[in-house]
Amino acid sequence: MTGVSGDLTRLSLNQETIKQWSLPELAEGCVKAGVPGVGLWRAPVQEYGVEAAARLIRDAGLAVTSLCRGGFFTAIDPTERAAALADNRAAIDEAATLGTDTLILVSGGLPPGSRDLTAARERIADALAELAPYAADHGVRLAIEPLHPMYASDRCVVSTLAQALDLAERFPADQVGVVVDTYHLWWDDTVAAQIARAGAGGRLASFQLADWITPLPEGVLLGRGQLGDGAVDFRWFREHVDATGFDGPIEVEIFNPALWARDGAEVLAEVAERYRTLVL
Amino acid sequence: MTGVSGDLTRLSLNQETIKQWSLPELAEGCVKAGVPGVGLWRAPVQEYGVEAAARLIRDAGLAVTSLCRGGFFTAIDPTERAAALADNRAAIDEAATLGTDTLILVSGGLPPGSRDLTAARERIADALAELAPYAADHGVRLAIEPLHPMYASDRCVVSTLAQALDLAERFPADQVGVVVDTYHLWWDDTVAAQIARAGAGGRLASFQLADWITPLPEGVLLGRGQLGDGAVDFRWFREHVDATGFDGPIEVEIFNPALWARDGAEVLAEVAERYRTLVL
Repeated sequence: MTGVSGDLTRLSLNQETIKQWSLPELAEGCVKAGVPGVGLWRAPVQEYGVEAAARLIRDAGLAVTSLCRGGFFTAIDPTERAAALADNRAAIDEAATLGTDTLILVSGGLPPGSRDLTAARERIADALAELAPYAADHGVRLAIEPLHPMYASDRCVVSTLAQALDLAERFPADQVGVVVDTYHLWWDDTVAAQIARAGAGGRLASFQLADWITPLPEGVLLGRGQLGDGAVDFRWFREHVDATGFDGPIEVEIFNPALWARDGAEVLAEVAERYRTLVL
Repeated sequence: MTGVSGDLTRLSLNQETIKQWSLPELAEGCVKAGVPGVGLWRAPVQEYGVEAAARLIRDAGLAVTSLCRGGFFTAIDPTERAAALADNRAAIDEAATLGTDTLILVSGGLPPGSRDLTAARERIADALAELAPYAADHGVRLAIEPLHPMYASDRCVVSTLAQALDLAERFPADQVGVVVDTYHLWWDDTVAAQIARAGAGGRLASFQLADWITPLPEGVLLGRGQLGDGAVDFRWFREHVDATGFDGPIEVEIFNPALWARDGAEVLAEVAERYRTLVL
């Protein structure tokens, strides 16, 4: 790689950022823009065909930096729990087929009627104990993503990097890591110390970027901002992550209908420009 | 007090919970329901007249357990900053007139264009240094309320009880305390330890209840749940707060348009019933 694109050697585009693109459009768009990595989601990959998607991305010369997502480990009902574990084994298989070593986990919220966060977190640990060896056998590391506390009841009872590390550290570092996503963690004054802890323990499996903007939309799922539009100091995060020795991909994952309504190539050019000026 | 109402000796109704009530309706409604305390807000009190409101509540035999709110200390612009300090002195005067010793602070978010949480938190400390002696001279304690991290950019950069205590502990305990509000803190696995820290230091100035329900509405301000409708374990919180020796008021503060659309007395009866069965 030469010239301007050389700056982008660590950049990865999570496909949900430009979800208006099909997988072939994603591959072509990233190649054209000089973006060497993509983060994929299970649903569009399954729709395209896992093997076909793997071939497409590989033939384009792109790396799959992560697969979203496994998780939802907090069900109490044994049938639901068994189904979740089976689905996670399928996700691990898909990650292996796609050639990524990172399966992102959204661990799950409180089951209906439950108010016991501690028990829910323990059920996550139980699920990790069952799945981590299977993942390792397939060359895949499980990456616990702490989600913003506003998702604690319905999506993920793991709300801080400290909690994610408390869980991950019960397992070998090559089997269970953590995700640092700026959108979820930017507000936390302990995050620098926890990033250092993650790095020191070899737990830093994925580094993802999105900006924090307000007002939040109803349901608070699709309100992430383009880099630079909000409150996050990206360079601060990148410097703290890099200071641990991490030199892996930096994945941009934004869920925002305003970006989905635009021309994909234009959005990716904007992402790359913001990345150069605000992250590097 | 006798019989069933005796259970309610610590209950306080924050007026925003039943904002369809005028101040006289609030006073009458609380007396009828055997609820001995009210939490007030500056705007409706100013509209009614501060002296008149103080007389009304006092004559009804009710205690004012808190006044909402001071704060918004994070402006960088000197003129804005001076205006905020002047407004906070006025809030302290109003609290003193109303006979409450607790002024709740919503400390402020990031100023436009700023991404520096640390500096914003330092400006809060600077403002507290100016205001705390003035408040103490008026028999009022400033109560730092950590707000849920989803408000960190636009309302309050103090997101955890630990952060609130880090700020409060720079000042005498009788001048600056903290608020434990279940809505903001329920997700945090360090909250039990921080409640104990607050109690040990004599910092627990206010204990407020609301439930966490989803989906969150646009803007995420008016989505608090009636006690029991959501994810919060209220008895757990009350037991941890009481274990510190705290025996002050327990204030219910819910912002929810569905409650505002109902008959006020019916809502208050429901609050009291949920309080008896879920909190005590």
